[in-house]
Amino acid sequence: MSERTLAACRVNADRLWQRLMALARCGATAGGGVDRQALSAEEIESWHLMIGWARAAGLEPATDAAGNLFIALPGFDREAPPVLAGSHLDSQPGGGRFDGVYGVLAALEVLTVLAERGVRPPADMVCVAWMNEEGSRFAPGMMGSEAFAGVRTLEAVRAARDADGVSVAEALDALHAAFPSLRRRPLGFPLKAYLEAHIEQGPVLEAGGRVIGVVTGIQGKKTFDVVIDGERGHAGTLAMAGRRDALAAFARVAAACYSKIGGHDDAVKFTIGRLQVEPNAPSVVPERVTLRIDLRHPDNDVLGLLGQQLDALCGMHAEPCKATSTRLVDAPSNAFDPALQAAIAAAAEQLGEPHMPILSAAGHDARHMAALCPSAMIFIPCRGGVSHAEHEWAEPAHVAAGADVLLRVLLPYADGGEGA
Amino acid sequence: MSERTLAACRVNADRLWQRLMALARCGATAGGGVDRQALSAEEIESWHLMIGWARAAGLEPATDAAGNLFIALPGFDREAPPVLAGSHLDSQPGGGRFDGVYGVLAALEVLTVLAERGVRPPADMVCVAWMNEEGSRFAPGMMGSEAFAGVRTLEAVRAARDADGVSVAEALDALHAAFPSLRRRPLGFPLKAYLEAHIEQGPVLEAGGRVIGVVTGIQGKKTFDVVIDGERGHAGTLAMAGRRDALAAFARVAAACYSKIGGHDDAVKFTIGRLQVEPNAPSVVPERVTLRIDLRHPDNDVLGLLGQQLDALCGMHAEPCKATSTRLVDAPSNAFDPALQAAIAAAAEQLGEPHMPILSAAGHDARHMAALCPSAMIFIPCRGGVSHAEHEWAEPAHVAAGADVLLRVLLPYADGGEGA
Repeated sequence: MSERTLAACRVNADRLWQRLMALARCGATAGGGVDRQALSAEEIESWHLMIGWARAAGLEPATDAAGNLFIALPGFDREAPPVLAGSHLDSQPGGGRFDGVYGVLAALEVLTVLAERGVRPPADMVCVAWMNEEGSRFAPGMMGSEAFAGVRTLEAVRAARDADGVSVAEALDALHAAFPSLRRRPLGFPLKAYLEAHIEQGPVLEAGGRVIGVVTGIQGKKTFDVVIDGERGHAGTLAMAGRRDALAAFARVAAACYSKIGGHDDAVKFTIGRLQVEPNAPSVVPERVTLRIDLRHPDNDVLGLLGQQLDALCGMHAEPCKATSTRLVDAPSNAFDPALQAAIAAAAEQLGEPHMPILSAAGHDARHMAALCPSAMIFIPCRGGVSHAEHEWAEPAHVAAGADVLLRVLLPYADGGEGA
Repeated sequence: MSERTLAACRVNADRLWQRLMALARCGATAGGGVDRQALSAEEIESWHLMIGWARAAGLEPATDAAGNLFIALPGFDREAPPVLAGSHLDSQPGGGRFDGVYGVLAALEVLTVLAERGVRPPADMVCVAWMNEEGSRFAPGMMGSEAFAGVRTLEAVRAARDADGVSVAEALDALHAAFPSLRRRPLGFPLKAYLEAHIEQGPVLEAGGRVIGVVTGIQGKKTFDVVIDGERGHAGTLAMAGRRDALAAFARVAAACYSKIGGHDDAVKFTIGRLQVEPNAPSVVPERVTLRIDLRHPDNDVLGLLGQQLDALCGMHAEPCKATSTRLVDAPSNAFDPALQAAIAAAAEQLGEPHMPILSAAGHDARHMAALCPSAMIFIPCRGGVSHAEHEWAEPAHVAAGADVLLRVLLPYADGGEGA
């Protein structure tokens, strides 16, 4: 089948939407959102759906040692580097129905359309769902793509534990045990290109009236765990002057950071998302506070500077307690492949969808693929820019448009061309 | 047996110490402390020890509808109002071996010594262990003494739930089921007097080189639950200017309160002991923070003023989030019975123990008994003033001295006198 014949084809928008809603039932929350943690029973349930749909379409599911899910449209040369497209199936606790899962289902939809038309590409075309992008159950996030890209060893990934003490190793073994017949791909097999569709998770496309975002790159991100150590005591008897109250130290450190770092410029993002207080009892002066800091900026120099300032503010304002900071993630800003960006813009143009270049404020697995092969991302709007929330929402027409752009960008790989 | 004969008798210091160490095994922590929450399996275990010792000494255990434990040395007139002495058996998580349990065991030791000498007092003399003084499992604390004193209804007490959703009603029923043969006393039976021995939980006695503190009263205390409501969002995409970050609001509120209220004067105590962040996920802007504030001051006017200032600071600094404050405890400072204070000082004098008047910075069940009958407290030092901590410690000689003072103050009730 020639590229010319395929040029007119579209994804099945109804099927894609129905599958989004079906996956939203895996870990559905009372508030209409999704809580589908990495390697959880809910994620395993979502794998059963994915694999069922894949097999029904004649696609080949597989996994790897890092718990990534691959679904291949087999090519003539099974050894040739495939083009890969996808995202992740795990969610934040109280997350929405689109973050991650949209990119996986858009890729599955493209492969399903090609399979229905009897396409046999020169090399495999593969849909991927990366393990633990969110990092909310096991820290840090993007474990599957990092293990695939060799950024983090499989050993380090397997050693991480969740709040209940369950290791990734144990959870991975349970996942693999649930799918005993699944073929294993090696970690880090060569790739021809990588595409990821995703909701924007910000308000830019909606505000600009655009349906397609041609992602130019991902802003840099650093995350830190900070431990503030003080001394516990009785809330009614210990004089204020004699206290080393870890929560009072946190309040000073945090107020300074929100003001000095969070107020540095319009492009900075500073968040303390997670906080743990010990012993966390009503009449006890807290002895330890542990916090997770998420710091982002599109300019790598500014990001580096703010990271240093953060350390200084922690040290200065924690007195008489002691602050110890550990850097978990240190990802500089990156730029996506210009040719693939051009192909996305051209596809949107041909489909009559308004488009614009956009910097991704959120991190994505595509960051790690960009180091391995030409990579790019396609954004669609989400209502009010809201994400990581139960009422996260994307319009069905935008969902279909993003998948149609993905299909169009992937078509050259289906017909022996060299892609964009 | 005459008061003259008893005047020379002393508590069995070894037995008292051994029992303190035996009770410390109910809920022992790895760090050498105690985690014995109200109505827990660990507290039930401690009741088994208490009741075993009581029965071996010919004393009569009983309970009431609020889960208080009573151990009586029977008097000639079983209907006459008894003198009551005791404290509580529950601990903070990561608490110590003396807070509460010392006062219960000192009272049991006094009754045991009297029973061994064949004393039959004119009215019952009763040791008490109040239910849930600490308030760390079920909030607020002092539930047993409040229900007894009629400050809180039994219905309200039974409705409280712990972090796992277990109600006091369920836990109380389990406690009573564990001791099916235990006699039930009515709530709020008339009392002749109340005495409570306790570690100081502060550094004053140690610093002053005194062994006995004659407690003049308890400083006033207010506790509040404050809920700060904001809006969740994606840590990488939501612009700082558009955020309603509940944790950022908390940092501003807390920094202002620690400085303005915590720094008001040397007598104030301001503590945020417990904090909960929602959703508490690394890449999510927090939407809600719930905190428990503990505010104490010996001057009721100042305490009232600081409470109002607290509400104002929450409202002002939480913007653009919304702070809602609920008062849980509102206990003014109180003064103990002058005649009982004099009796405690006289007993210490006769025993050659250095003593001093002292204000209790911590709250105690004696606060509620003082409204019912002449009441007082006896303090002994604790090392470094440390309490609510695993390394809380009291010297064996001080433990014995406090119990000997208690014995001496209770002697008049053993022999037909009218007490102090």
